[in-house]
Amino acid sequence: MGVPVFYLEAPEKTNYLSADDSFHAHKVLRLKIGDPIQILNGNGKKFNAVIALSDSRKTEFRQLELDSEQSTNPNILKLWIAPTKQMERMEWMIEKCTEIGIDTIGFFVSKNSERKEIKLQRLEKIVVSAIKQSKQLYLPKLREIITLKKLVEELGQEKEGVGFAYISKEPIDSISTLIETHKIRNVIIGPEGDFTQEEVETFFKAGFKPFSLGNSILRTETAGIKTTVAFSLNN
Amino acid sequence: MGVPVFYLEAPEKTNYLSADDSFHAHKVLRLKIGDPIQILNGNGKKFNAVIALSDSRKTEFRQLELDSEQSTNPNILKLWIAPTKQMERMEWMIEKCTEIGIDTIGFFVSKNSERKEIKLQRLEKIVVSAIKQSKQLYLPKLREIITLKKLVEELGQEKEGVGFAYISKEPIDSISTLIETHKIRNVIIGPEGDFTQEEVETFFKAGFKPFSLGNSILRTETAGIKTTVAFSLNN
Repeated sequence: MGVPVFYLEAPEKTNYLSADDSFHAHKVLRLKIGDPIQILNGNGKKFNAVIALSDSRKTEFRQLELDSEQSTNPNILKLWIAPTKQMERMEWMIEKCTEIGIDTIGFFVSKNSERKEIKLQRLEKIVVSAIKQSKQLYLPKLREIITLKKLVEELGQEKEGVGFAYISKEPIDSISTLIETHKIRNVIIGPEGDFTQEEVETFFKAGFKPFSLGNSILRTETAGIKTTVAFSLNN
Repeated sequence: MGVPVFYLEAPEKTNYLSADDSFHAHKVLRLKIGDPIQILNGNGKKFNAVIALSDSRKTEFRQLELDSEQSTNPNILKLWIAPTKQMERMEWMIEKCTEIGIDTIGFFVSKNSERKEIKLQRLEKIVVSAIKQSKQLYLPKLREIITLKKLVEELGQEKEGVGFAYISKEPIDSISTLIETHKIRNVIIGPEGDFTQEEVETFFKAGFKPFSLGNSILRTETAGIKTTVAFSLNN
């Protein structure tokens, strides 16, 4: 099974695993004093440590030492997506995007949105679990849902390029071309009912670039995964 | 909602939708005489037709005419994968791979396989539903589970290149490089416990090419989706 991996935001500032992880370490993994563990801080560092005291509420570790480090996040994509009606589809996408590698996943509400609210708590658990599983050193950031208007304002200020998935009758750039030639870092993916013409106009006005994800009609979460893979292959 | 789409293997040879589709057309969509429908034959052709008689067991159509045609399948990937323990993960992958575009999905059992049996019936429904949703003209072929030994023998006879996902300490070709330079069409993806050294040796002996899917550890189904996207972007 390998050495168990835990996530802890600032392992240098504490000697204890979180309450959930303490329970898991003690009751499920049955770790004993002296057992080795690894700790990810989700910000580029992986540490080694050993169990000092196994307790279902407050498991203690000691001998914290840096195992490996990445000074910058290799995953550059910030994905902005209209959440699907079925939350399960978003959860699956978030797990897959985290495994493949992503910087940020944020949500927005637009005219044709099927879902206007989102609870991040469950999604946060999914990203933590997925970085542990896939051995990513950076925890993807999850952003609260905002209106599309607000998102366009925010991204309009960014220095990094912005692209949006667009279904067009004219031939337009592929996602790969846009990543290479326009150095986009932010991608906006609309709801199943797509963007309205008015929304698309605000994108063009803000200087965002349209791109195609190919000829087949993808569900929202599939568009999110395909975009994330395109970035990871261009890395 | 657009015109309802049905799948029927040989719409030129019958005037009736399948029993399941008849029920759906009559009871759920409540189609009436004269309503337009579209029919995919899953082999490159999409037809227009109109309802002649709506019946929950035997819905009849008439005025069949070709709407569009692709003479060859644009999706070239044949994916051979060790199914995961949780069938849900395979079902999700199959839906996503179908949306993105794939020629064949086949299954095998290897030394570290977590699942040795697979029922295709439910998976067949998923691919049919996904081509209708994504407007693909070709139905992906699903292949019964076989032993890895048998698969290596079969693929060893193929004229098309074969690649396998490989976790190596040495730098090896990326999937994109392999698609471009070695024209691979078949990809083998192992179980979570990976291939054994002996299995890997049989691949090398058969002339199959190893490739990397990047630095993060992907779950089996994520590796399948990432491979499918890589092919669709190189299309």
